[in-house]
Amino acid sequence: MRLATLTSGGDCPGLNAVIRGVVRTANTEFGSTCVGYLDGWVGLLEDKRMQLYDDHFIDSILLRGGTILGTGRLHPDKFKAGLDQIKDNLAEAEIDALVAIGGEGTLKGAKWLSDNGIPVVGVPKTIDNDVNATDYTFGFDTAVSVATDAIDRLHTTAESHNRILIVEVMGRHVGWIALHAGMAGGAHYTVIPEEPFDIAEITKAMERRFQMGEKYGIIVVAEGAVPKEGTMDAGLGEEDEFGHKTFKGMGQIIGDEIHKRTGYDVRTTVLGHIQRGGTPTAYDRVLATRYGVAAARAAHEGKFGTSVALHGEDIALVSLEEAVGKLKTVPEHRYKTAKAMFG
Amino acid sequence: MRLATLTSGGDCPGLNAVIRGVVRTANTEFGSTCVGYLDGWVGLLEDKRMQLYDDHFIDSILLRGGTILGTGRLHPDKFKAGLDQIKDNLAEAEIDALVAIGGEGTLKGAKWLSDNGIPVVGVPKTIDNDVNATDYTFGFDTAVSVATDAIDRLHTTAESHNRILIVEVMGRHVGWIALHAGMAGGAHYTVIPEEPFDIAEITKAMERRFQMGEKYGIIVVAEGAVPKEGTMDAGLGEEDEFGHKTFKGMGQIIGDEIHKRTGYDVRTTVLGHIQRGGTPTAYDRVLATRYGVAAARAAHEGKFGTSVALHGEDIALVSLEEAVGKLKTVPEHRYKTAKAMFG
Amino acid sequence: MRLATLTSGGDCPGLNAVIRGVVRTANTEFGSTCVGYLDGWVGLLEDKRMQLYDDHFIDSILLRGGTILGTGRLHPDKFKAGLDQIKDNLAEAEIDALVAIGGEGTLKGAKWLSDNGIPVVGVPKTIDNDVNATDYTFGFDTAVSVATDAIDRLHTTAESHNRILIVEVMGRHVGWIALHAGMAGGAHYTVIPEEPFDIAEITKAMERRFQMGEKYGIIVVAEGAVPKEGTMDAGLGEEDEFGHKTFKGMGQIIGDEIHKRTGYDVRTTVLGHIQRGGTPTAYDRVLATRYGVAAARAAHEGKFGTSVALHGEDIALVSLEEAVGKLKTVPEHRYKTAKAMFG
Amino acid sequence: MRLATLTSGGDCPGLNAVIRGVVRTANTEFGSTCVGYLDGWVGLLEDKRMQLYDDHFIDSILLRGGTILGTGRLHPDKFKAGLDQIKDNLAEAEIDALVAIGGEGTLKGAKWLSDNGIPVVGVPKTIDNDVNATDYTFGFDTAVSVATDAIDRLHTTAESHNRILIVEVMGRHVGWIALHAGMAGGAHYTVIPEEPFDIAEITKAMERRFQMGEKYGIIVVAEGAVPKEGTMDAGLGEEDEFGHKTFKGMGQIIGDEIHKRTGYDVRTTVLGHIQRGGTPTAYDRVLATRYGVAAARAAHEGKFGTSVALHGEDIALVSLEEAVGKLKTVPEHRYKTAKAMFG
Repeated sequence: MRLATLTSGGDCPGLNAVIRGVVRTANTEFGSTCVGYLDGWVGLLEDKRMQLYDDHFIDSILLRGGTILGTGRLHPDKFKAGLDQIKDNLAEAEIDALVAIGGEGTLKGAKWLSDNGIPVVGVPKTIDNDVNATDYTFGFDTAVSVATDAIDRLHTTAESHNRILIVEVMGRHVGWIALHAGMAGGAHYTVIPEEPFDIAEITKAMERRFQMGEKYGIIVVAEGAVPKEGTMDAGLGEEDEFGHKTFKGMGQIIGDEIHKRTGYDVRTTVLGHIQRGGTPTAYDRVLATRYGVAAARAAHEGKFGTSVALHGEDIALVSLEEAVGKLKTVPEHRYKTAKAMFG
Repeated sequence: MRLATLTSGGDCPGLNAVIRGVVRTANTEFGSTCVGYLDGWVGLLEDKRMQLYDDHFIDSILLRGGTILGTGRLHPDKFKAGLDQIKDNLAEAEIDALVAIGGEGTLKGAKWLSDNGIPVVGVPKTIDNDVNATDYTFGFDTAVSVATDAIDRLHTTAESHNRILIVEVMGRHVGWIALHAGMAGGAHYTVIPEEPFDIAEITKAMERRFQMGEKYGIIVVAEGAVPKEGTMDAGLGEEDEFGHKTFKGMGQIIGDEIHKRTGYDVRTTVLGHIQRGGTPTAYDRVLATRYGVAAARAAHEGKFGTSVALHGEDIALVSLEEAVGKLKTVPEHRYKTAKAMFG
Repeated sequence: MRLATLTSGGDCPGLNAVIRGVVRTANTEFGSTCVGYLDGWVGLLEDKRMQLYDDHFIDSILLRGGTILGTGRLHPDKFKAGLDQIKDNLAEAEIDALVAIGGEGTLKGAKWLSDNGIPVVGVPKTIDNDVNATDYTFGFDTAVSVATDAIDRLHTTAESHNRILIVEVMGRHVGWIALHAGMAGGAHYTVIPEEPFDIAEITKAMERRFQMGEKYGIIVVAEGAVPKEGTMDAGLGEEDEFGHKTFKGMGQIIGDEIHKRTGYDVRTTVLGHIQRGGTPTAYDRVLATRYGVAAARAAHEGKFGTSVALHGEDIALVSLEEAVGKLKTVPEHRYKTAKAMFG
Repeated sequence: MRLATLTSGGDCPGLNAVIRGVVRTANTEFGSTCVGYLDGWVGLLEDKRMQLYDDHFIDSILLRGGTILGTGRLHPDKFKAGLDQIKDNLAEAEIDALVAIGGEGTLKGAKWLSDNGIPVVGVPKTIDNDVNATDYTFGFDTAVSVATDAIDRLHTTAESHNRILIVEVMGRHVGWIALHAGMAGGAHYTVIPEEPFDIAEITKAMERRFQMGEKYGIIVVAEGAVPKEGTMDAGLGEEDEFGHKTFKGMGQIIGDEIHKRTGYDVRTTVLGHIQRGGTPTAYDRVLATRYGVAAARAAHEGKFGTSVALHGEDIALVSLEEAVGKLKTVPEHRYKTAKAMFG
């Protein structure tokens, strides 16, 4: 068999571990050869590819952040218009199956290819952990670890009284990173997109801490956090294409507002892209490797139109339809548990 | 309500996070007070305890390895003989429920107390990940991370040709740490207790690497690894109380044997107790905190005779009976997946 | 002898290691007792203090960020007006000597106390490494390590073409953290306060990278970086009390300007206070411990009016006058060496 | 100019950073080209080499442990017998100068080549920090950090009473790693080769701890530690070629002896090669880069027969004669300072 793979969408620690898992399994368990398309769907459409041998190089990528295949973004219209070209490219390169590694958008693309007759297996990838039908995605644990390290460091910087330390973490639509990092780091308040925040309530929580004799308070803010309607300056934010308000620099906005209301000294850390890069955690490397092995096996067993997924201790196969069904958001009961640790 | 908790058995990163979760939840969600028994069952029997307030101290223990309550070991006979004393102690201290945090042995003790009328909720704890009925135990991810860091470092120490690097990790009866660290670290062979090893096969795998032009090979050895019968010197090892052979320093033994057979230069790292200590990973802190919250809630809801457990994304309650049913060993299919990455 | 110590100014990893070094040395080498004043000079003036015993607690603080004695800021006028009160407090508490741990400002205060007859030994403390007369200050290595870890992670997040990643690090007046982190992290350009930057030159350096086929560029920006006169929008920045322009959020400002000029995608990480907190590196713990030991010895040998300092491999004593003589800035030849690695 | 470089001797984190510093400086500051000989002196003798371009690959090696050029060992006799061959090889490859990166032995070889008319600049390399005439060598800080991390973790594993935890670290002839890691990690006793140990004194120190109510004691043992004559079993150890006794597994030997004398539970960690591998610390990357820059400059300025060295804050050039003059051992006053923190 001749197996192709590609990585698409934003960077995510563990992508290379999946590629390695696919290539080694294809070789050692099935004697198959592998090809990697470059820059995601773009490479598939433009037929840019490289041979992937089960060699020293592939073995050495396990620890590396990023992806040796590169990623890229392709407008859905261009993607769909390119179906025939893609089919031709796969045929000419004698590819028997495609393992597509990517997030929500990529898996939707994979499903569309599958619906159009191309043999595809998907591997869910997102540091945001928002893919339905899998317990966890690789990259998430690394992002949470990076954010937690930052919070850990802040706990000891209580040089002056009544100081607020804000950490803005990734999560435009879902609050998983904020939820886990806030809990792991012992934050005193965590704001997630799923539950609009009341700035007065956050401020009160900090005041309560200071009245108890604490010197500082740490607030974790998901970048996609939104204020409860009517609770903050109506002039803030911008409308996106769906008419929803979005806010740039939400950590800074919340900090400024708290400072304005209380006079407290506020310091903000914006972690940004460091959450997406670098060596994956051991957890993510194991999960990514198992995904790669399972995807290669699924391809060889002809189980197309599926995505690998983590169910408890096991790697399962779910339909691509199920995988892209809906965004996995933080359920209310999880946020309630987090709240028990606030303050 | 008045809730007591204790920690028993070997050290495990995350114990303090559970204690903190129990104390804060009892206070913030139920307005209850908490007591901690010192040195595990010993403190319960000898009535050594401390008040646990939901204060700055409890908040600060989240990151700490070890346990603020200490642990201890008590012979089962003494433990059982002390039932009346334990009941008296709990009654006198006006304890309404007990959260027992510990491994296989501790949970068996908790079950026995529960069977004898004491209201107990268990929290499974083991870096070995060998507790039945839960997907993962806290402490395991930290141990795997420590071992993986060590393996990562070895990959670049290829100063001379044909060198074997051996890392001995914890796991007397089960190979979970070795399995995950070996996979995360990209080891070239991993030996676990569940599958007796053939020294000739390991040696051959290393020779194959060197023939392919590789300069070194990394072997992860669980301390409880055992040779296939008849494959190594019959004089090795000692019989334990059940008549099973045990081997001290298995990493060294395997290394010496490979050196004897091939003349390869062999270097051994024995990680020992550093796998049990230090700041827990973000993953373990989240899991431990959720266990603590769930245990406090279960106690307040009168769900005694149970243990908290991780099932997929959720914290579940299982019966103590189920939790201590049998040791969770590495299943064959997981070792097969690991093998796909060897070599 | 009865020795007092205090910590003053901003937080800095290693403060507790100094305190531990002072207390243990005073006890084990001289049989002396120790007192700690709380909240820096404030505690000295208001006579807030605690006994410091050579016990388990003092032993355990080695790894902790922050300072167990707290710090505080006191207006120089209040400080000087309080001289008699300070003398009374020291006399009443029967203090024979004072070890003052702090930055530029604190050492100036220590010098003034010493000039006014109080027996003082100084210990230089600043994550900025800007204290004259010592090769390095503790806390600096930790700050550099935190910043370097962040840069390391960015190197693998090259998801899209022509992306600029900016990391803003501490350094309001001197560029040591930026210089070292930029060199350790392999940044492609580093901007320090000592050399006003030309935005056109930075932009050109990035363009050159992209023309060579590189996908991304990393720029390290010290928070105190300033543009060459006339090179950026005159409306930027604010004048400080000395008439100098200061700029808030210089990382963001540079990023916005590059984006405006080139259209490149720019992502910014603002590390902020995480550089000041958390467990000190091994290097900082050794340096801080040696400083503490040396300060306790100097106090017992009556060498007052001095500051400990690192000279090569040795801990030396310099006069407080020398220590506060001038700010240690990055010399031109060091920046030239850094530049050899740009691009 | 055409510059050659090679790395020789044991692995050491930072080797690649030196190579990168040499290559980039040669290119950006002097427009020179570079060549790397493979496997140390072996490659020089056998003319195995590769072009080193100032490209993406060279830029990317900054973080990598090991050396992209490989190292090797060559018997001094073979080395010296090969002088004419080496000269021929250098001439044929049109090499104008050689940068030799290595430890004591390598620098001696470099000196001999220099004495025989070959234009050489040396760069000292040893994780042991035992090279004379330089304050510190790169790799040392990384080794100390790895060992300190291990000790940190042990502090929290105090599960049972009267437990001794031993960490064996590198240092066959000098105790720098043990000294610094022991101080940074807060070990309760540290044994170095420079001062033969008295097992009775170590045991007494541990007993004193337990009498004070402490539960555990941590002992750091340099692998080259030796017992005071007459204090331990005369049968131990083996004589080396100089008639000195050497001991294999000194951590285990000390642990066994303490256990025999006291019955205390003893656990041993043998760090081994993980101290030599992996990503260098920020400190080591800066030092190694500066060494590389300085060596390239020295070569271009014709300052041959020299070695780069760290003197305080500056990189200096010393004669190769001075650099290999004698082993730099831990001076008595440094061990005395360490002792002030024992117990």
